[in-house]
Order: sequence, then structure tokens, then C-alpha cells
Amino acid sequence: MDQPIKYRLIKKEKHTGARLGEITTPHGTFETPIFMPVGTQASVKTMAPEELKEMGASIILANTYHLWLRPGSKLVREAGGLHKFMNWDRGILTDSGGFQVFSLAKRRGITEEGVTFKSHLDGQKMFLSPEKAIHIENDLGPDIMMSLDECPPFYESYDYLKKSVARTTRWAQRGLKAHRNPQSQGIFGIVQGAGYKDLRQQSARDLVSLDFAGYSIGGLSVGESKAEMNQVLDFTTPLLPENKPRYLMGVGTADSLIDGVIRGIDMFDCVLPTRIARNGTCMTSQGRLVVKNAKYAHDFTPLDPNCDCYACRNYTRAYIRHLLQVDETFGIHLTSYHNLYYLVHLMSQVRQAIKDDNLLEFREHVFEQYGFNQKNSKNF
Amino acid sequence: MDQPIKYRLIKKEKHTGARLGEITTPHGTFETPIFMPVGTQASVKTMAPEELKEMGASIILANTYHLWLRPGSKLVREAGGLHKFMNWDRGILTDSGGFQVFSLAKRRGITEEGVTFKSHLDGQKMFLSPEKAIHIENDLGPDIMMSLDECPPFYESYDYLKKSVARTTRWAQRGLKAHRNPQSQGIFGIVQGAGYKDLRQQSARDLVSLDFAGYSIGGLSVGESKAEMNQVLDFTTPLLPENKPRYLMGVGTADSLIDGVIRGIDMFDCVLPTRIARNGTCMTSQGRLVVKNAKYAHDFTPLDPNCDCYACRNYTRAYIRHLLQVDETFGIHLTSYHNLYYLVHLMSQVRQAIKDDNLLEFREHVFEQYGFNQKNSKNF
Repeated sequence: MDQPIKYRLIKKEKHTGARLGEITTPHGTFETPIFMPVGTQASVKTMAPEELKEMGASIILANTYHLWLRPGSKLVREAGGLHKFMNWDRGILTDSGGFQVFSLAKRRGITEEGVTFKSHLDGQKMFLSPEKAIHIENDLGPDIMMSLDECPPFYESYDYLKKSVARTTRWAQRGLKAHRNPQSQGIFGIVQGAGYKDLRQQSARDLVSLDFAGYSIGGLSVGESKAEMNQVLDFTTPLLPENKPRYLMGVGTADSLIDGVIRGIDMFDCVLPTRIARNGTCMTSQGRLVVKNAKYAHDFTPLDPNCDCYACRNYTRAYIRHLLQVDETFGIHLTSYHNLYYLVHLMSQVRQAIKDDNLLEFREHVFEQYGFNQKNSKNF
Repeated sequence: MDQPIKYRLIKKEKHTGARLGEITTPHGTFETPIFMPVGTQASVKTMAPEELKEMGASIILANTYHLWLRPGSKLVREAGGLHKFMNWDRGILTDSGGFQVFSLAKRRGITEEGVTFKSHLDGQKMFLSPEKAIHIENDLGPDIMMSLDECPPFYESYDYLKKSVARTTRWAQRGLKAHRNPQSQGIFGIVQGAGYKDLRQQSARDLVSLDFAGYSIGGLSVGESKAEMNQVLDFTTPLLPENKPRYLMGVGTADSLIDGVIRGIDMFDCVLPTRIARNGTCMTSQGRLVVKNAKYAHDFTPLDPNCDCYACRNYTRAYIRHLLQVDETFGIHLTSYHNLYYLVHLMSQVRQAIKDDNLLEFREHVFEQYGFNQKNSKNF
């Protein structure tokens, strides 16, 4: 059977594990590594699809759990799938709903069969199984789907994690079997195992043997340290096949993106850029900028003097601060636009650095400018 | 002295009082009659300036009262004026702050000198005089400014209104004298007088003798009937000079716009299109559509099948309803875009009807399609 998701390795960086690649989906081909903006409820918050294209986003994320609840996956299917529903003709990836079930929903009960839980919206009792997750994702119609995984806390006990990881692998296998559109959608398996080397490696080996279209690394960016995250990547990515994409889930700070790429990651997503934008926090080439601060009231320079995004080309800190102060949503739109652009553009610079074999120098430059090297630095 | 605001009468419609004209401002020339989107706090809610241009808006409104409070007129002046502050290089008109002082602020006291009131934000005691209003507007830097007026309730007593109208005229004269940038900004006088013919006519005659750049008709769309509004226009506009623009303040329903044009009005503004958009109410060629209604959940047609705006070309009722249901602001952006487009585009059709001398037929068509002729029809 022909895989709808193809990965082509273009080049490895000389001094790190970073790789330049190319992913082909039914909705376009793009170079990796990349950052994927998150459109939780079939909309990347405040953004028009044209604006995401303008900044160079080639694939976005949508959340299975949220869309399953509202408007319902059957309705999205009736609309012709997510691409048509939300007017986005480039790539879409959906998660499995697992992360939300384990972080948002209440009164969960996990069995071999699946997860029962109560909706965070109205308390309605619901059930999600590996088969059901895939069928919902089949209805939603993204290019890339995730298999249902359990996402336990990073510091959960070894015994619990061992059982959980084995179950996640069995669930992944069941998801593969339940897949109804193998010609147009690919499934990624999700490597779990928290901070344990043997569990991560077991998980990776077992999933690789199932031959997924790509591999996600889950259960990170959930409270562990940066060093712990990097360590997990260090002993996990070498076990993943070179001819498949690797996706580090839920990671969206500049330092973690670069450090992930260095360890062989191709894809990242995170709500961070749009979430902090709503509080007026901006990612800039000079570090974190909280534009709501009073000191920017009379600052008629752009959010980031080194940025050429729509917001920075046309508006000042003083104007954006004013909009946020008086609750004008156009202000949030401008900070969201800027933050997404920052990460999407950062990854385009990362790809160039891989081509030029100077990713470590680029890392040093970004870390120095952003202040990641300082103790107590905020990481976004 | 050369007037910065010029009006050229191009053509009168054969069967009504409607007129096709052209207004020249320091920020461009445009045909009238027109509808002006409202950017209360230096932002037309959810809209980018480029989108307003795309739909053909040639001049927008901003509110002196709101901008005086936040971010402050001195800051806007420091930014280089409203045009530069908000990245809008076409026309801007500011009101005088009078309407907001009389509708929003608390504990007002009116004297000949001006109005004392408490800020609706923090209760701070403030004072606005005709001179101060003009100086604030000079700092804001719009092309067209309003002189400070009192905006009393439509059904206020004759005796009170008579004194109020005379005072508004004296205030208008004081505003003219206080004007600091007569070479780059024009002032409109505001005709008041509620529903009384003699007061409206006295107000109009007195203001016309003061030679303003244009004339506003205020104190309407505040609770009176459509018939009363039209009657006021019937006995007021004939007294206004043919070589100056006429602006009906705060009016923004399709029927009132057309009926105002028929009575010789050139300019309109209203927050209605963006305000109702936030509740999912849309103005369409087929009447009022509340897209949040459950019956549109599976409706994969555009908001208005006869509309070619960005929202209608790309999104369905089902998608927009979903976005509103889950509080995604992109949904409000789409309904706002559509409603503004509807009114801006309606006025472009009105101008064509004036050229073609068939405005009454056009009126009948719109009224019939929208349902304005039906009893108990909602007027938007």
C-alpha cells in the first residue's frame, strides 16, 4: 500500500543530529524541521488561513477531543472534512484526544478497552477507545492522525508507567487496524515512557515494528526540566527510523525547538505562542517582551526591531499596548500573528543553519539574544 | 482660507432628494453617500485596516471621549496622530465626545462653560468644554472633527431643548474659534432640536451662518420612530447648504440609510454592524440572519448567498456558527467583516442607483428582500 505521508531526508547537519527533510502529504510538500501552529477548535486563534500561509505555515494542528465535543466529528465529515470546513488547503495534523482526556476531562477510568471520562463542558459521560479515536480522526479528515495514547504524569511510578506504555503500544496497534482511510491519511505512533530510558526505548522499538507513517514523542513539556527533556530525546530519537518524520508534541519555546532539532526532531507544535499573546507576551529576537507593561506606553518602535512580520511592519508597541489595555481583540490578533511568525520564521532560519552546517552557532546566537543562557530566565 | 474638506455635488437623483457627491479630505477623495465604519478606540473591532480598504471603506470614525480617556490624546499626538497610530491612511472623522458624555458618563453637570462629569471607567472627575473638545480633536488629528454638542433625549421638554439648542450653537462658535489646525482639519457643526421643526430649523440656520466645513444631524436614532427621524430630515436638510456634506450621526440600518439618502444625507456611521456581529447577527440581502441559531448547524451555505465578501466567499454558516459557539474570535471577525461589507457595499449600490435615477426602485427591492415592509420586522 502506498503511504500518503512520505518523508525524504535531504541532508544531515555536520555537527549535530539535526536533519533537513521534506514531508509530502495529500495537501502539499514542505521542508522540515517546522513548527505547526495549533488550531484547537478548527481555528488558529484570531488568525485567518491566508495569514498563516503568508507567514509560511505549511501544516497546522487541530484537536480531536475538542472537535469531537463541538461541533462533532460527524458534522465536520458532513462539511467535507476539516480542510474544507475551516478553509485550509495545506496540511493538517490531529492529535488523538488522549492528552485532553488526561488533562481536561474529569473522573477518568482507564481499562484495556479504553478511557471513560466526563466531558469538561457539561459532565456528560464519554468513552474513547483506540478504534474510536481513529474513527473520529477519519471523520475529521486530517493528513496526519495520532493513535490514542495514555499521557501519564512525568513523575509517575516506574511500575505504573511500564504498564501504561505497554498498553499504549497495544492501543497503537488497534488504531492501525481500525484505520478506514489508509490511502489518504497517515497515522503516527506515540512514544511514551516519561524519563525512563528502558521504557522509552521499549516503546520506540515496539512502535517502529508496527510501521507507522511517523513517530511522535509524547509526555514531554509537562513539568520536567529542559535537561530531562533533552535526555529523553537523546536516548529515543536514535531508535526511530531515518525514513520517517519525528514529531515532538506540545513543545513551543525557541530553546526547546532548537535543542529538539539538534536531537533529530522534525516537527513541533504548541499553543504557547497564541496563549501568551493573549496576555500581551511576545517572543522576540531580543527575548521576551510583555508589551502590556507601562514602560511601553510611549514606545513607538515595533514589537521586535528585527522582525518583518505584518504586526512589526505596521504597528508600534504603544498602539498594541493600547489595544490590549482597552480589550480590542485586534491587539491580540497582532501579538498572536507576531508570535506565530516568530516560531515559524525561527524554523526557517534553523533549516538554513542545517544547510549551512552552523546550527550550533545559530543556537548560541539565539540563546544569547533571548537570554536563555541566563539563570532564572523565563523560557518564553 | 482654503478649506481642507471640500464637497463637490456631482448629480441629483431625479425623483428624490438624493445626491451623488465627492468629498476631498487631506487623506483622499471619495464619492458619497457613504457608510463609515466605527473604530471607537482607534480600531474597527476585529478588523485590519487592509480589510477595510479591501471592502472599499474610504473614511472611518473614532471616538474622542474614549481616546481622550485611553490612551490619551497627547499620546496619540506624540504618535503622529490617529492615522499613523492606527495605520490608516484614508479619512478619519472624530465625534466631539458629547454623545458619550451624555450617554456613558455619570453625574453630569452642564453649564454655559461646558460639562463636568465622572469617567465611566474610574469615576474620575472630568471637564469638557467646546474649546477642550476641539483641542483634543486637534491632538487626535482626524480630517473631520465635530464641535461639542449637547445630545438631550428626543422626548425632552420643548423649553429645555430650546435652551440646549441655543447653547450648542454658542458652543459650536467657540469650537470654531479654538481650532488650531484649520489648514488640515475641518469642523462640522451639529444640528440639534429633537423632533421640533422650529428648533431644528433655528439650529440649522444659525450653524450655517457660522460657515462650517459640513453639517451633522445629531440627536437621532436615540429611541424615536423611523417616521419621526425621516420627518426631522425632511424639514432640516433643505436648510443645509448644497456645497457642504451632510452627516446623519449614529444611523446604521439599511432602511434608515436609504431613507436618509433620499432626504439628502451624504454620510452615516453606526456601531450596529460590528455590535450585532458579536452576537452572531448578520445583515444580509435576504434580511436579518442570526447565524448562532441551531438551524444553521448543518448549513453549508454562505451567510448571504448574494454576497461576495471574504466571509461569504470562504466560509459556511455551519463553520461560523461553530466558531461563535466555542468562543473563537475569528467567528466574530467573519460576521463583523460581513456586516461592514454589507453596509459599505449597500452604499455603493445606492450611489449607482442615484446615477441611474432609480433609487426608489432600489429602495423597494431592498425593503422587500430584507423584510422592512413587514410589520414587526426587526430593523437590522
